[in-house]
Amino acid sequence: MKIGLIGAGRIGQLHGELLTSNIPEAEIKTVAEIYADNVKQWVKQLRISNLTTDYTDILNDAEIEAVLICSSTDTHARLIVESAEAGKHIFCEKPIDFNIEKIKRALDAVKAAGVKLQIGFNRRFDHNFKKVRQMVETGKVGDVHIVKITSRDPAPPPIEYLKVSGGIFLDMTIHDFDMARYLSISDVEEVYAQGAVLIDPAFGDIGDVDTAVVTLKFKNGALGVIDNSRQAVYGYDQRVEVFGSKGYVEVENEFPNSARLSTAEGVSSDKPHYFFLERYQQSYVEELKAFVDAVIKDKQPPITGEDGLKPVLIGLAALTSLKEKRPVKISEII
Amino acid sequence: MKIGLIGAGRIGQLHGELLTSNIPEAEIKTVAEIYADNVKQWVKQLRISNLTTDYTDILNDAEIEAVLICSSTDTHARLIVESAEAGKHIFCEKPIDFNIEKIKRALDAVKAAGVKLQIGFNRRFDHNFKKVRQMVETGKVGDVHIVKITSRDPAPPPIEYLKVSGGIFLDMTIHDFDMARYLSISDVEEVYAQGAVLIDPAFGDIGDVDTAVVTLKFKNGALGVIDNSRQAVYGYDQRVEVFGSKGYVEVENEFPNSARLSTAEGVSSDKPHYFFLERYQQSYVEELKAFVDAVIKDKQPPITGEDGLKPVLIGLAALTSLKEKRPVKISEII
Amino acid sequence: MKIGLIGAGRIGQLHGELLTSNIPEAEIKTVAEIYADNVKQWVKQLRISNLTTDYTDILNDAEIEAVLICSSTDTHARLIVESAEAGKHIFCEKPIDFNIEKIKRALDAVKAAGVKLQIGFNRRFDHNFKKVRQMVETGKVGDVHIVKITSRDPAPPPIEYLKVSGGIFLDMTIHDFDMARYLSISDVEEVYAQGAVLIDPAFGDIGDVDTAVVTLKFKNGALGVIDNSRQAVYGYDQRVEVFGSKGYVEVENEFPNSARLSTAEGVSSDKPHYFFLERYQQSYVEELKAFVDAVIKDKQPPITGEDGLKPVLIGLAALTSLKEKRPVKISEII
Amino acid sequence: MKIGLIGAGRIGQLHGELLTSNIPEAEIKTVAEIYADNVKQWVKQLRISNLTTDYTDILNDAEIEAVLICSSTDTHARLIVESAEAGKHIFCEKPIDFNIEKIKRALDAVKAAGVKLQIGFNRRFDHNFKKVRQMVETGKVGDVHIVKITSRDPAPPPIEYLKVSGGIFLDMTIHDFDMARYLSISDVEEVYAQGAVLIDPAFGDIGDVDTAVVTLKFKNGALGVIDNSRQAVYGYDQRVEVFGSKGYVEVENEFPNSARLSTAEGVSSDKPHYFFLERYQQSYVEELKAFVDAVIKDKQPPITGEDGLKPVLIGLAALTSLKEKRPVKISEII
Repeated sequence: MKIGLIGAGRIGQLHGELLTSNIPEAEIKTVAEIYADNVKQWVKQLRISNLTTDYTDILNDAEIEAVLICSSTDTHARLIVESAEAGKHIFCEKPIDFNIEKIKRALDAVKAAGVKLQIGFNRRFDHNFKKVRQMVETGKVGDVHIVKITSRDPAPPPIEYLKVSGGIFLDMTIHDFDMARYLSISDVEEVYAQGAVLIDPAFGDIGDVDTAVVTLKFKNGALGVIDNSRQAVYGYDQRVEVFGSKGYVEVENEFPNSARLSTAEGVSSDKPHYFFLERYQQSYVEELKAFVDAVIKDKQPPITGEDGLKPVLIGLAALTSLKEKRPVKISEII
Repeated sequence: MKIGLIGAGRIGQLHGELLTSNIPEAEIKTVAEIYADNVKQWVKQLRISNLTTDYTDILNDAEIEAVLICSSTDTHARLIVESAEAGKHIFCEKPIDFNIEKIKRALDAVKAAGVKLQIGFNRRFDHNFKKVRQMVETGKVGDVHIVKITSRDPAPPPIEYLKVSGGIFLDMTIHDFDMARYLSISDVEEVYAQGAVLIDPAFGDIGDVDTAVVTLKFKNGALGVIDNSRQAVYGYDQRVEVFGSKGYVEVENEFPNSARLSTAEGVSSDKPHYFFLERYQQSYVEELKAFVDAVIKDKQPPITGEDGLKPVLIGLAALTSLKEKRPVKISEII
Repeated sequence: MKIGLIGAGRIGQLHGELLTSNIPEAEIKTVAEIYADNVKQWVKQLRISNLTTDYTDILNDAEIEAVLICSSTDTHARLIVESAEAGKHIFCEKPIDFNIEKIKRALDAVKAAGVKLQIGFNRRFDHNFKKVRQMVETGKVGDVHIVKITSRDPAPPPIEYLKVSGGIFLDMTIHDFDMARYLSISDVEEVYAQGAVLIDPAFGDIGDVDTAVVTLKFKNGALGVIDNSRQAVYGYDQRVEVFGSKGYVEVENEFPNSARLSTAEGVSSDKPHYFFLERYQQSYVEELKAFVDAVIKDKQPPITGEDGLKPVLIGLAALTSLKEKRPVKISEII
Repeated sequence: MKIGLIGAGRIGQLHGELLTSNIPEAEIKTVAEIYADNVKQWVKQLRISNLTTDYTDILNDAEIEAVLICSSTDTHARLIVESAEAGKHIFCEKPIDFNIEKIKRALDAVKAAGVKLQIGFNRRFDHNFKKVRQMVETGKVGDVHIVKITSRDPAPPPIEYLKVSGGIFLDMTIHDFDMARYLSISDVEEVYAQGAVLIDPAFGDIGDVDTAVVTLKFKNGALGVIDNSRQAVYGYDQRVEVFGSKGYVEVENEFPNSARLSTAEGVSSDKPHYFFLERYQQSYVEELKAFVDAVIKDKQPPITGEDGLKPVLIGLAALTSLKEKRPVKISEII
């Protein structure tokens, strides 16, 4: 199965490398990247045949069955539409877009073309979170009562990035909104968001927050809470807990090693993995495997366009909640 | 130092026993209990000299320096006033009352009499939470950004108790509100409460909830979240986490043993201690020691009347929030 | 039940205090201590009626049913004989003696008198080790294949004490030999001991070692290993592991709190409890309860004279092994 | 850098795959495998150019710089000699041989030819053990006093394999002997081995044991202990601990996930990884990287021929010890 990669920035290169080393069933035939010169060397190293600055070379190549859309967020919706119309199956990085109308048009195009679309919520493929979901699914925790998600980045991105990021809820919490749906096996009905500027006043200057606590009400009656920070100095902090009528399940962070030193000063060990590349490496492989598998076996991808839309709705509701200082129903957004 | 115990129900007997075995500096001279017959045997076992049905026997006994008020909540405020007027130092079980005016009158009486008053928020004396507080105090976590408290009971109390309990926020979360103040070293400014009836419809029938997620805004800018359940089938779940600019500190539950069994089925160990008697035994000793010490050394008790008032204010704000579906400022309550 | 305490040094006072606060069924009537002046204040504090320098005051007191022998080791055997002849039930600190003949004569006297004798191997009553034993007993680990015991003191005792201690195997490892028998539910057949002087040359000067690894062969075919150090700078290190055909069970040390701090430097927490007083406090209470219970209900005490003899045999075999650099059978010792 | 792979059984294929996906600097040009038909498909999948039944095709290929010797143990020594004489750098699976003379001749040939030789003790590259070694090296535990290694396989290999395996000490414990040297940063001077047949009488029938406890004396004075079992039903058990004058460091097993479920029955989680392929996957990559790096940069490989010889000496000493029931010095073996 031949694949075209559109956008070879950091995340595009990650996907390219992982697919090449780990998925013998698929092969990247062509890379489209506006700044082609920057990736010439990288394309050569991966023994990829073609490099172009024009993504339509991929869409027009009949041999290419699927595309990986890894370009900037503002191009996602349009590229989904064009790829669908070209009959390509689509793996698209999250988020699809911040605009509900644009997302819906993209999903409509996918539906009309009958192609497959998978959204890149890679954390669903993390071995730990997958295990928690399995336990919820198989009734190990009983009826879900409370979902708790801790999600903290090690350090804030550059302010230039933040300005166009859509704000903490659409840039960072969006992953957690997806996780909340995944772990509760339910949809979010209402959001209440609290935010604060505690790390860097620059966040406040651009109308954003750097620390947030978001509470959720799920359709199945359960409650949820997400806490976010843009700066956890000890590393990437990604923990979840699901509490229910039969008990609770929690997962820890991942650590570079389990060595534990006991001395006269106390007991010490290494801090968690630094960031998502270290923590979620394997989950990126798994999501690509699932996509390739869905295409080859003509199955529904595990994360659909609908799954791409819903976290955006929750994020927009959270933004409204923060602004208007009140709980906001998802139904107010659509 | 001679002490009078007013009310010898479950918690009164606990205090009586712990004081007798652990604090040689103090001695319970008289127990006042309306249902004196029920406790005759117990009083004898502890070699306590006097048992009466009339608490004024204690207030009128010049030899008695201090009282432990362990009677039902509705009598606390009145007994504080009378004990203060009788010149006795006072240890009073939480909560003082649900009525702000009554609490204030009690605190005024204490102030006027110049006696000491300590409120029974025993969890502050738990070895784990004390360590967390120390770490916050000594700057180990830096500026506090997020305080998280998990507080779940193993099983709901009888419905008859629940009817007069004041509801989950004044009966159960009140401990967590105190803990939030203790750990953040700040006051709560605003509350938003979510609740659900997920365990037993009987909670809904009496206008209460059995599951809650409460978010807090602190005066120092930090955010907080408390999650409660009336039924954690694996036992008493009492964990906290404080996240700040330099890192985070968390504490685990306590377990009856650390034995860990690895078999072909997996790794297993015992569940946490069942309830507060097992978990907080030592903290009850410590709070009494602190009270006796404050009296003997003429110091301010570590938990004042003000500390007894504030969690009630937060609880009332949470109740309002739940009813009116909006964040509520503490300043609205007073 | 009236009890006489013979020897009120550190361990004698510990037993006296724990019995007084925790076991209402028993009462220390008389304390016999050669240096009576040193303990006058302590005896008064505990409201014990009589203090004598002559232990025969206890043996001749018809009201006293049982004695706690807490004097120096060289007096144990003789006091057991005399107490038995006086018809007293006996709780005796470990070890009974270092001389097999003297031990046997003591046990014979106990048998002849028909009194009860319990030896103070308190660790058997530790909540963790008890749980491990239960798991072995109930078949949770299947047939026992390997028993591992780590036993390290925080700091060496004074050299004066060491000179008369009998050496590491009879002073320190003896507890572990008992634990090995307790956890394997079997007897030791053969010992091989390795030792080294790594902490302080003073150990070598008196013909002792400060670091040891002892391997065991049990009658049931299982293998065992004990590692000892006189100086674990992080505190008292007491861990065990039992491995068998169905899995393994292990227990951790105990810690003063479970607070875990994550910062840019790593994850850290407190070191284990400092020494046996902190770690085994509750086990001392439990062993006394068991002894009082055995006397009151006329049952066999849980740790018999035979249980006191066997670890001494193993210790002597270990000494021989170290000297002769070869495995030594227990049957060679008797 | 072109590499020839000699022997494409299980471990040979593992090396082939890991090298192909992870080490762009090297490439397997030719595979030599007697049962070439069995691996045709595998060679094709990996896009390796040549497959031969005659390993001299590799030795005679001037373009090939290095060989990976993954054939059966009895061929190792001879292939090392021939490869060295052909001027190839050599990566050889452990053990080199069971015969000291043959090993020495092989090492002499390597020396004479001036080629590099690395032995496949992959566990040295495990992230956990590497961290322990670093801590020892940097003085975090002070002087080493005790090294403890637990090493248990999940299930015994087929009896046919066992018959030619050289026995538990040369087949299984040999890895631990290497680990003992690695962690103590010292050599072993004396061994005492205890063994038992507790899992399957078939082990006894072929003169082997299935359970062992081996104690070590190191040249630096430290003591060591290794415990082995051929059947840990909960999975691959690989833990180490180094205790010294400043404290101790220990590492845990690795687990497929960190999910921890708390229910009314207790707390449970997954058992450790099943076996070495899951546990040590990354260490196999790292050892190959180190070998390729040593060749490319003309450095000494991290595990030399001497490092391959010494564990065999210790293993032979352990065998003698078990047979003669006495501690055996390594110097007796050479």
